[in-house]
Amino acid sequence: MTHVRNVWYVAAWEQDLPEAQPFAITILDEPIVVYRSEGRLVALEDRCVHRMAPLSLGRCEGARLRCMYHGLLFDPDGKVVEIPGQELIPAQARVRSYPVVEKHSWIWVWMGDPARADEALIPPAVGSDDTDWFLGCGQLDYAASAELIHDNLCDFSHLSFVHANSFGATEDWAHTRPRVTPLARGVRFERWVPAQKGMRAREAAEPVDAWSAYDYLVPGVLLMKSASYPGGTAERLGFAPPPPDLEGASGVTFTSQAVTAMTAKTARYFFSWGPHRDHGDEALRDMLMGIAGQAFGEDKAMIEAQQRVIDATPNPRVMPTSADKGVTLYQRLVERLAREEAGEGRAAA
Amino acid sequence: MTHVRNVWYVAAWEQDLPEAQPFAITILDEPIVVYRSEGRLVALEDRCVHRMAPLSLGRCEGARLRCMYHGLLFDPDGKVVEIPGQELIPAQARVRSYPVVEKHSWIWVWMGDPARADEALIPPAVGSDDTDWFLGCGQLDYAASAELIHDNLCDFSHLSFVHANSFGATEDWAHTRPRVTPLARGVRFERWVPAQKGMRAREAAEPVDAWSAYDYLVPGVLLMKSASYPGGTAERLGFAPPPPDLEGASGVTFTSQAVTAMTAKTARYFFSWGPHRDHGDEALRDMLMGIAGQAFGEDKAMIEAQQRVIDATPNPRVMPTSADKGVTLYQRLVERLAREEAGEGRAAA
Amino acid sequence: MTHVRNVWYVAAWEQDLPEAQPFAITILDEPIVVYRSEGRLVALEDRCVHRMAPLSLGRCEGARLRCMYHGLLFDPDGKVVEIPGQELIPAQARVRSYPVVEKHSWIWVWMGDPARADEALIPPAVGSDDTDWFLGCGQLDYAASAELIHDNLCDFSHLSFVHANSFGATEDWAHTRPRVTPLARGVRFERWVPAQKGMRAREAAEPVDAWSAYDYLVPGVLLMKSASYPGGTAERLGFAPPPPDLEGASGVTFTSQAVTAMTAKTARYFFSWGPHRDHGDEALRDMLMGIAGQAFGEDKAMIEAQQRVIDATPNPRVMPTSADKGVTLYQRLVERLAREEAGEGRAAA
Repeated sequence: MTHVRNVWYVAAWEQDLPEAQPFAITILDEPIVVYRSEGRLVALEDRCVHRMAPLSLGRCEGARLRCMYHGLLFDPDGKVVEIPGQELIPAQARVRSYPVVEKHSWIWVWMGDPARADEALIPPAVGSDDTDWFLGCGQLDYAASAELIHDNLCDFSHLSFVHANSFGATEDWAHTRPRVTPLARGVRFERWVPAQKGMRAREAAEPVDAWSAYDYLVPGVLLMKSASYPGGTAERLGFAPPPPDLEGASGVTFTSQAVTAMTAKTARYFFSWGPHRDHGDEALRDMLMGIAGQAFGEDKAMIEAQQRVIDATPNPRVMPTSADKGVTLYQRLVERLAREEAGEGRAAA
Repeated sequence: MTHVRNVWYVAAWEQDLPEAQPFAITILDEPIVVYRSEGRLVALEDRCVHRMAPLSLGRCEGARLRCMYHGLLFDPDGKVVEIPGQELIPAQARVRSYPVVEKHSWIWVWMGDPARADEALIPPAVGSDDTDWFLGCGQLDYAASAELIHDNLCDFSHLSFVHANSFGATEDWAHTRPRVTPLARGVRFERWVPAQKGMRAREAAEPVDAWSAYDYLVPGVLLMKSASYPGGTAERLGFAPPPPDLEGASGVTFTSQAVTAMTAKTARYFFSWGPHRDHGDEALRDMLMGIAGQAFGEDKAMIEAQQRVIDATPNPRVMPTSADKGVTLYQRLVERLAREEAGEGRAAA
Repeated sequence: MTHVRNVWYVAAWEQDLPEAQPFAITILDEPIVVYRSEGRLVALEDRCVHRMAPLSLGRCEGARLRCMYHGLLFDPDGKVVEIPGQELIPAQARVRSYPVVEKHSWIWVWMGDPARADEALIPPAVGSDDTDWFLGCGQLDYAASAELIHDNLCDFSHLSFVHANSFGATEDWAHTRPRVTPLARGVRFERWVPAQKGMRAREAAEPVDAWSAYDYLVPGVLLMKSASYPGGTAERLGFAPPPPDLEGASGVTFTSQAVTAMTAKTARYFFSWGPHRDHGDEALRDMLMGIAGQAFGEDKAMIEAQQRVIDATPNPRVMPTSADKGVTLYQRLVERLAREEAGEGRAAA
């Protein structure tokens, strides 16, 4: 499991974090408790320094969190400030504290060096505070490694097969290839599928050219805008991206997705999707979320089955195809960033 | 786990393999997909060469099978013949293909060297195509090693104890010993239980001598004929096998059974049973299958409990008894055949 | 897992051992079958010497136990006395036999050297044969190590937090410390909580001083008497234990509890509780058992969560507090006794 640490991981939807109710999640094998109390948002190691009871079974007291096994009380910075019946509090009585930020409807936790936590690095997801979009949201837990989901999301040729019954992509789709561009912290995918007659689920009366563009950013955040244009637009533009002000766009939607590695073999998948307010309403949002629910269930079934095959294979090996260009770019980016972090760690030591 | 590979394993009942519906089974830790499509019966490695997705989630297209993750298309010999959106198909783009045959109502897969696959080695089970018999069929999955089931089937002294409530054998049964004869590819068991008053479930008005004879053949196929004769027959024949044309036989039945090792600790058990058409009908078949269902559940409960004890024992050891003669002969045969295969493998290398 | 072996472990409630019905339990990773038949109480290794089938699936025949796989018959001392169909019985045909005693409503099994089994070492629990008390009883299985339950029972400061909703201890409780005294085979805990206004569940009209005293004895047996006295008693006595004949006691109860290590990560917890006949009746007993059921469920939830955190922690470490004095004393006692046993074992070898 190669992971980047100096990066923001999605830990929860903001609406899943009510006032003063500790929330537990494991990220990169580390148990974390997140809570919001009296205006503070806090993320701590979810393991009491005393006897390793989970603090997520604890009680918020103001901005502090009390372990409900033997009553140790923790400050938001992880320091123990009270041990019932004991005057002296040892210096080592503290748990790890994580930088944590609420933005774009998500709770983001920084898993690396706290000194380097930089909110500017939070990917520009679209949250429910952006009134340009009607967004539905959901999440799924995977009994599979985050890497397999990254692979899935960096190669949309699977749409023609895994999602033949939901998104309704024909096999033509799998025969196109996106333009794939490396970014500093991700990979960009841009794709025209011209006169795409075969998107059966939302078939247009007139043939349209389908455009989609997404960035896949560390540690696994997908931000995609899709739109349709009158047939012939792709060719007229020489298959270049449509200018933002290009007339004739229809069916404009946006989806934010995040894959969070919990353990080596489990991951949580967060997603929102919906139309631009000029191209739809709540009803279309709900229809799209119904399709997404079916489609992401198809992914989960396939990827968990893939994980079981890999687990049962003594020396698992992959034979990449030309559709894997983005997959490979993203994997190498993660490996390079992880290597750089390890190098910095050694230099600092 | 010592196993013979150059041998036919039962993978399924023929009726469990409908046209164009891929069927998954693991044999000897190898994931296998079997399908029947447009007159072809095919068995392939159930693991796509691309990213290890299971082909059993795939789609039959004529005699070919398409992986439904990214659309690679496989020929019945395991070669990839299409990668959507890619012209070149690498030479290593292939999965293993297994010899597979449908015979005696079972689908048989050859796990060893394909060049040595010989249909003549398929054990002479009785299938539903044999109109001499009224046969019911069933199967059970075991959370136990195939070896423990082999041991069970090579020592019928357990009938008096495990099956006291179903087959109704008395303790007299456990005090007899069968004649045990080594075969080239198995062990033969022949047994007279004279004037066997105590088979309670099917007690005869007149005392009868019970005769049963079965071969236990690699990799775990039991083929048994049972019959009753008038009391005194056994002694009159000097406890030799009854000649095929001997008058006075009653209650003649046949059972075919097969144990397939899936993993080191799981196995699938296939079985049929029923009367000869001169000795019964569908009603007797159903009654016998009811008894078998109870009895094979008793075996499963005992053997899975035995497996749990073995798993919890640091250095498991066995103390054989005189009833274990057939068990030991069968174990040694498997070890010898496996050794010979290993030797041939080295000589060929 | 450090455990004392020359000690009595609770294996069952006497009422859970009906005549001639073998009962299975694993203690210290050893599978044990206990049965009572024709006046004999017997504990044997639960693993047939033949092929490791569990004898607990067997049948009592007089004071003997028959394995119901292939019919081997065992004497109460573990020796095989019959192998169906075989004359000779090998000398090694025997399983281990354990000293076993029924006392104070519990079945006790001696896990160490049988020659040293001494009934005088059975802890003085209060059983249902003691008519001074109205006792209810129960048990819980833990997916956690016995050690974590020992830790819990040797530090009652957790009452204020884990049991805030059941026993109703206030946080004042956690600020007191018991008198902790080492015993030859355990640790004694004695505690006054003066004018304890805050035991909400059973709040008294007049402030009372709460007294409780328990011994925690190897291998995990807790025997506790609790009582209340008029406010001021504790101070008047200089916080010394109340003399047995001290007037004014109210709410006198007794609880016997036993923790039996089954495997490294599982344990069974037995408990009884109830009032002295001068201080209550069956109705109070049932009310107390209702509270205990809730409270012990709270312990189980916390301790099993603690176990999961420990299991997910690469190098688990503890930071003891001043409340851990009894925990540490008990742990050291167990380590010392285990060391002594190991030394004796070496000396004897």
